[in-house]
Amino acid sequence: MRSFKLVLAYDGTAYHGWQIQLNARTIQAELERALHAVTGETIRATASGRTDSGVHAQGQVVSFASATRLAPPVLQRAVNANLPFDIRVLSLEEAPEGFHAIRDAMSKRYRYLIQDGGVSDPFLRRTCYFVPQRLDAVAMHAAAQRLVGEHDFASYEKLGSPRATTVRKITDFTIRRQRAELCELIVIEVEANGFLYNMVRNLVGTLIEVGRGIQPVDWPIQVLEAKQRRAAGQTAPPHALCLLSVRYE
Amino acid sequence: MRSFKLVLAYDGTAYHGWQIQLNARTIQAELERALHAVTGETIRATASGRTDSGVHAQGQVVSFASATRLAPPVLQRAVNANLPFDIRVLSLEEAPEGFHAIRDAMSKRYRYLIQDGGVSDPFLRRTCYFVPQRLDAVAMHAAAQRLVGEHDFASYEKLGSPRATTVRKITDFTIRRQRAELCELIVIEVEANGFLYNMVRNLVGTLIEVGRGIQPVDWPIQVLEAKQRRAAGQTAPPHALCLLSVRYE
Repeated sequence: MRSFKLVLAYDGTAYHGWQIQLNARTIQAELERALHAVTGETIRATASGRTDSGVHAQGQVVSFASATRLAPPVLQRAVNANLPFDIRVLSLEEAPEGFHAIRDAMSKRYRYLIQDGGVSDPFLRRTCYFVPQRLDAVAMHAAAQRLVGEHDFASYEKLGSPRATTVRKITDFTIRRQRAELCELIVIEVEANGFLYNMVRNLVGTLIEVGRGIQPVDWPIQVLEAKQRRAAGQTAPPHALCLLSVRYE
Repeated sequence: MRSFKLVLAYDGTAYHGWQIQLNARTIQAELERALHAVTGETIRATASGRTDSGVHAQGQVVSFASATRLAPPVLQRAVNANLPFDIRVLSLEEAPEGFHAIRDAMSKRYRYLIQDGGVSDPFLRRTCYFVPQRLDAVAMHAAAQRLVGEHDFASYEKLGSPRATTVRKITDFTIRRQRAELCELIVIEVEANGFLYNMVRNLVGTLIEVGRGIQPVDWPIQVLEAKQRRAAGQTAPPHALCLLSVRYE
């Protein structure tokens, strides 16, 4: 068997997330179906992490094993030819034996897009969260900086998601304004050695409270210290979240 | 009656173009329905030009008359509240009496997006034309420059579209490469005092032949001089075309 690493981009709008489910379209099901169509094998694809329903990816990393003799570029083209157009294999290469997309991941980077105020951009409605009021992005960035580092993020985890540890290390958390074609966006990028379930969306929902001026800049760190999910703000909607990249050794 | 000018952005994917048709969703029908819902009047909306099925707009200009007493910002919000999210009124203002979006238009600017080669970007599939081979954008730009100026564009008009004159003046025609998030794009922008039916898509289809190296740089001007539609290249698909702006005195 050969080990492979592929990088996947997908528009998650039409899918119930990564993981295979009965009676629902998922990214994993589409990819495994395409791999089967090309190789004739029943292949289990492992992603660096499950993305939720509606979440997008520009750089999801997937590992799988196969006995195929196809060269990686040929395999890539054949898999793409068997995938719907909203899922694309951006690259595919042979990996060291036993490469595992979850276990070997060193860090992941996510992006969250917000349009705050103005008229909602009709071209961004599938990838951007529209909030009607103007937010204070400078205050949000300042609040985010206090979360950088290794902390117990239990307050930002979805309730009822048992994990061995809720300690994670955020290595970068940047919030800035960026001009889009028809509007201005707030672009939030966060990188960590791992994320708890719903962690990015809970962080964003909490930072939005700061951006609205409802909570002070030090509130997100107070929420962190409370170590209770109910201390945090609302969970921001999934359609504006995108997995940008996953880093490996 | 008061005259109004509104600027409209729409993702044309789900619509059969601007113009009202029986048994088909159109932009005009949605806008007139929203205007009726807000004012109670039967209002005829006139766009600067009809966009075809699947074509988008970032700056379509629409004129209409109404007896409403609502202030423009209030009217704008109310109309947006009655439109689907893929159609948005970006601005709305009272215009000089008798303002007419077609008759008073001085020039229009269109954009056409092409991704040439690589893996097709799943986030651009509704707004960008994917061609599998790399195109020579420099040759395309050079060819386009020869079409700038006042010419008889009969060769670039859809057959069977009678007009008083097929003479139009192109004032700018720029073709350049631009980096997008996951790929490189060829961005074509063309401005003219008016466009014949399918003119932009026929120009683009002809320039793509130059970009492929199938035809020489002076071919598009030879096509122009032939004054016969069958001399030109294929009509490029509609979903990558966007009406950027319309200029008025």
